[in-house]
Amino acid sequence: MEGDPTLRLRVFNLNCWAIRYLSKRRQERVRLIGDTLRREGFDLVLLQEVWSEQDYSDLKAKLGGCYPFSHYFRSGVIGSGLCVFSRFPILDTLLYQYSLNGYPYMLQHGDWFCGKSVGLVLAWGFTISLPPGSCQLHAEYCREKDAYLPHRLVQAWELAQFIRHTSKAADVVLLGGDLNMHPEDVGIRLLRGWTGLRDAFAEATRFEGCEDGCTLIPNNCFTVKTELLPFPLGIRIDYILYKAISSFTVKCEELKTTMGTAPGTDIPFSDHEAVMATLHIQRQGRAAGANLGTAEPMLPDVVTEARTEVGVGLRAAQRQRYSTGRMAVLALLLLLLQAVAALGALAGLAAGQPFPKLSFSLLAFLAIGVLLLATGLHLFHTMEVKMLQGTEEQMRMALRALQERP
Amino acid sequence: MEGDPTLRLRVFNLNCWAIRYLSKRRQERVRLIGDTLRREGFDLVLLQEVWSEQDYSDLKAKLGGCYPFSHYFRSGVIGSGLCVFSRFPILDTLLYQYSLNGYPYMLQHGDWFCGKSVGLVLAWGFTISLPPGSCQLHAEYCREKDAYLPHRLVQAWELAQFIRHTSKAADVVLLGGDLNMHPEDVGIRLLRGWTGLRDAFAEATRFEGCEDGCTLIPNNCFTVKTELLPFPLGIRIDYILYKAISSFTVKCEELKTTMGTAPGTDIPFSDHEAVMATLHIQRQGRAAGANLGTAEPMLPDVVTEARTEVGVGLRAAQRQRYSTGRMAVLALLLLLLQAVAALGALAGLAAGQPFPKLSFSLLAFLAIGVLLLATGLHLFHTMEVKMLQGTEEQMRMALRALQERP
Repeated sequence: MEGDPTLRLRVFNLNCWAIRYLSKRRQERVRLIGDTLRREGFDLVLLQEVWSEQDYSDLKAKLGGCYPFSHYFRSGVIGSGLCVFSRFPILDTLLYQYSLNGYPYMLQHGDWFCGKSVGLVLAWGFTISLPPGSCQLHAEYCREKDAYLPHRLVQAWELAQFIRHTSKAADVVLLGGDLNMHPEDVGIRLLRGWTGLRDAFAEATRFEGCEDGCTLIPNNCFTVKTELLPFPLGIRIDYILYKAISSFTVKCEELKTTMGTAPGTDIPFSDHEAVMATLHIQRQGRAAGANLGTAEPMLPDVVTEARTEVGVGLRAAQRQRYSTGRMAVLALLLLLLQAVAALGALAGLAAGQPFPKLSFSLLAFLAIGVLLLATGLHLFHTMEVKMLQGTEEQMRMALRALQERP
Repeated sequence: MEGDPTLRLRVFNLNCWAIRYLSKRRQERVRLIGDTLRREGFDLVLLQEVWSEQDYSDLKAKLGGCYPFSHYFRSGVIGSGLCVFSRFPILDTLLYQYSLNGYPYMLQHGDWFCGKSVGLVLAWGFTISLPPGSCQLHAEYCREKDAYLPHRLVQAWELAQFIRHTSKAADVVLLGGDLNMHPEDVGIRLLRGWTGLRDAFAEATRFEGCEDGCTLIPNNCFTVKTELLPFPLGIRIDYILYKAISSFTVKCEELKTTMGTAPGTDIPFSDHEAVMATLHIQRQGRAAGANLGTAEPMLPDVVTEARTEVGVGLRAAQRQRYSTGRMAVLALLLLLLQAVAALGALAGLAAGQPFPKLSFSLLAFLAIGVLLLATGLHLFHTMEVKMLQGTEEQMRMALRALQERP
């Protein structure tokens, strides 16, 4: 930007739903995504749910020509699924794993195993530093009785804090990802309010795509139709958010989404729609000041609402910590009782009766199993309580700071 | 600092060794620490290993008058043990948990349960922003055969990356903590080189305390003398590091350590010595530029050395992942074999012989136990492999950036 004080930045964001053996027509779709990205030549591509490193390597090989820089974030058992392709050099990366991410025993939901995280990439284009985070928050499995809401709120809060602390010297901050939250949800309001990030869909001068900007729509052949029954138009859970920090301004000129199929084909890229934004970044003469964007008048209410939900989660976690602890103690007592009975039998106290070896050892194994499981769960819920308490405390501190401000 | 362009900042750092039921004379020592801190009136107090929240609350109640601002970081099963007391308002906090921190099954070492982390505190004093990190890295249990070295290097790297990314807009960065590394260890050289932090001991104009600045000394009645046999003077593993980023300079005027006992008493504060620094912070007329301090000529060698060690850890983790996976498969095969035998017995194939119920069910329970354990360990080592690979990749990227620089 030496001579020209403006930059037009084209960003592509997609939750690729590329789970080996589980996602339908995965290889075909990954090929399609690669072809489209190569043809369209975006500046920055943020992908989620690329769970297989092989898929990433294939994409990297295909896209090396037009996106010479890329990064794959590794975390958790399966991986973070996050990767970034960029036309600008990637100078540095940082991965932040959320402290809470579901439960390891909810195998059918699997979030715990993914190590959900936010990845930060520092890229440089014409002296503009862009740390575009790519991220994914915990999935919502049941909107009416959402047991994961406190975890998702902790994640939204940690994401917001991570962005605040790492973006202070940045010129432009970009965040793209599947946030698993509807636009009016408290987590999104918290994230936007606490960081000052603006929603590309709400700010776009031109929009083209699904109604209301939805990214999970009944028209997509891979979506589960029953889950979308309460939302005939679909839901919007994939976002591109942005803000300018120092002497720059950012405007969203255009926002597009795919509409159930990839352009020019009859299959979709994924079960999510892709979001594509064209941002217009302009250098200003004077520094606008490091506005961290916490000036929203409704922000204290949003933080209070989020803190209440975290409090609900905290009490649930405390109850679970207590009941798993009690179960462990009971199992231990049963084992002790058995040890006493076995010692009694050995000492010949009940010499007349036959000792029921089989049922005795079955019971002992059962008690050991319950003891181990309950202890493990107790430790897990202890950790959960600590993290929820920590987040509640941080939110309390934030509220105090907001209220003390004139 | 409106009128006066200098600030004299007195910092206190101590690993308190305050583990409930385990640490000797804990309550007496915590009282002593509190009394000393109140009397001495430091500006900033960084404490590690305050494992009990009750101890933190007691300290907070006692120190409220002279250190009106404080924060306790919660994480892991037991907690992070980190807390900060400050004379300046604490504006914001952030906790970063290292992605690797020992093994859950090494119960005797216990690091895994602590959730070792770095806490960031943003404090404001006379318009100087101070984000002093307080941190603790994985303990070293055997210097000759240090199985945790790769984990500690991942932590040192993540700590360095965390500091680089969160301190860009800071004026002064302070890091105090028990780093569990000797001054010449590769992890310390990596941390110092990659962040540009300077060692208060090496830079101090005046020094008063243990020879070579040691903080774990044979003279302290709580240290394990046999562990210090190879080091007759003791070892230095507790540090205060600092740097100025923008238009400020920092100098360490004085560094002190306790010398085996707390001043004026006959018992030590802890098994570690306290480190106390007096820093002289001065505002300069011109901005010195955001020097991230990666100008050390030896830095590529240090990163290469660290990367080699991480590679060694990676191959060990891969071997463990493989052997635990193989054990899980064997246990599964045994179970299948048993199922076939049981079905055979039910179908009357061996009607003549009595079915050995007891030993059969004992074996089945054993196989189930081994299967669960081996699967758990396999998942854990898979995660370990991912994180080590991720760190190696980041170090590779850093090396490339260092080499490309003119």
